Amino acid sequence: MAGRVFVDLGMSLDGFIAGPNAGPHNPLGDHGTDIHQWIYKTAVFRERLSLGGGGETSADDAIARETFARAGAYIMGRRMFDEGEVGWPEEAPFHAPVFVLTHSPREPWVRPGGTTFYFVTDGIHSALEQAKSAAGEKDVQISGGAETVRQYVEAGLVDDLQIHVAPLLLGDGVRLSAGLAKAPLSLTTVGVCDSFSGVTHLRFRIPR
Amino acid sequence: MAGRVFVDLGMSLDGFIAGPNAGPHNPLGDHGTDIHQWIYKTAVFRERLSLGGGGETSADDAIARETFARAGAYIMGRRMFDEGEVGWPEEAPFHAPVFVLTHSPREPWVRPGGTTFYFVTDGIHSALEQAKSAAGEKDVQISGGAETVRQYVEAGLVDDLQIHVAPLLLGDGVRLSAGLAKAPLSLTTVGVCDSFSGVTHLRFRIPR
Repeated sequence: MAGRVFVDLGMSLDGFIAGPNAGPHNPLGDHGTDIHQWIYKTAVFRERLSLGGGGETSADDAIARETFARAGAYIMGRRMFDEGEVGWPEEAPFHAPVFVLTHSPREPWVRPGGTTFYFVTDGIHSALEQAKSAAGEKDVQISGGAETVRQYVEAGLVDDLQIHVAPLLLGDGVRLSAGLAKAPLSLTTVGVCDSFSGVTHLRFRIPR
Repeated sequence: MAGRVFVDLGMSLDGFIAGPNAGPHNPLGDHGTDIHQWIYKTAVFRERLSLGGGGETSADDAIARETFARAGAYIMGRRMFDEGEVGWPEEAPFHAPVFVLTHSPREPWVRPGGTTFYFVTDGIHSALEQAKSAAGEKDVQISGGAETVRQYVEAGLVDDLQIHVAPLLLGDGVRLSAGLAKAPLSLTTVGVCDSFSGVTHLRFRIPR
């Protein structure tokens, strides 16, 4: 199963991956952190964000750990990078090459801890080729945001979709499938995990 | 656990309980039947809709059967009734009293097989009181549509929310939580069932 392309997103039960009023200074939107409560509690999240020790070694932790482990390279949109550039700790949480889709050329930005950001100006196919090559035997994660995920899904380039459903009705916000022209899109359910913490971890394959 | 009030809805992974362009002659909206494929295949659905024998006696069937069994009375909005009045078979699928929220008084409508429709003109609290009394030891199901569900949730009158998540991105349609003023609303996850048919059955409690 090496060399796969996957998306991993937290979502409220009513289909939102961020709250309303999301923007540069509010990347997750209002109440958006409620969607991700489960991962903030895990030990692996604290390790990755250099928040010191602690955190839970739970079923949720095992799932988040597995996801970090399978990603050998990341792809993200420019806005997600811009938000992260100011928000991530100096030792960015990826510890792997990250390919940023942008229109502005920029030299690679090397961070301590193994994360290097590469800026790709010639489109999503080129970014994926570079990310696959960098990932080697590992997989490539399309990190976000929603628009970048949509582009890769519509181009038929995503193999796996992992969704973590939070027990929460947000009412409004950024929708997982907003503007998806390739809808309705049928998925194949390949895994359902009740972590008994409230969040439900779902895994799907996207048929080619 | 008798005397509870519950909502039971099919939903696409991206949060839609009906497809786009839903209306009087298209009650589930475009591709809306894709959301409910799992239940059409069950034996209990064929029994309830008088479609003759057959159907699967699967985990999905057991869950749908349990849901039908716990409901001693139903509440629905006027539009849902109007659509059903022309769409249901003569022996309507409820086999129990159904309380229809409406502004137009009408005599009770008795159908063969134990379904009687009562038309309630004095609001959602009155309908719930009548439904609870009719249900006796059993539970009351708020059937729909979305607007009726929203009203009962906002009034704090719903105990349990059962959602059947179909492996499908619809892209657009009728949202589970559209217009929910009481958002964000945190739920308590009480059950996750992978039926291995693709659909994931989730059960939540709505904290009072």
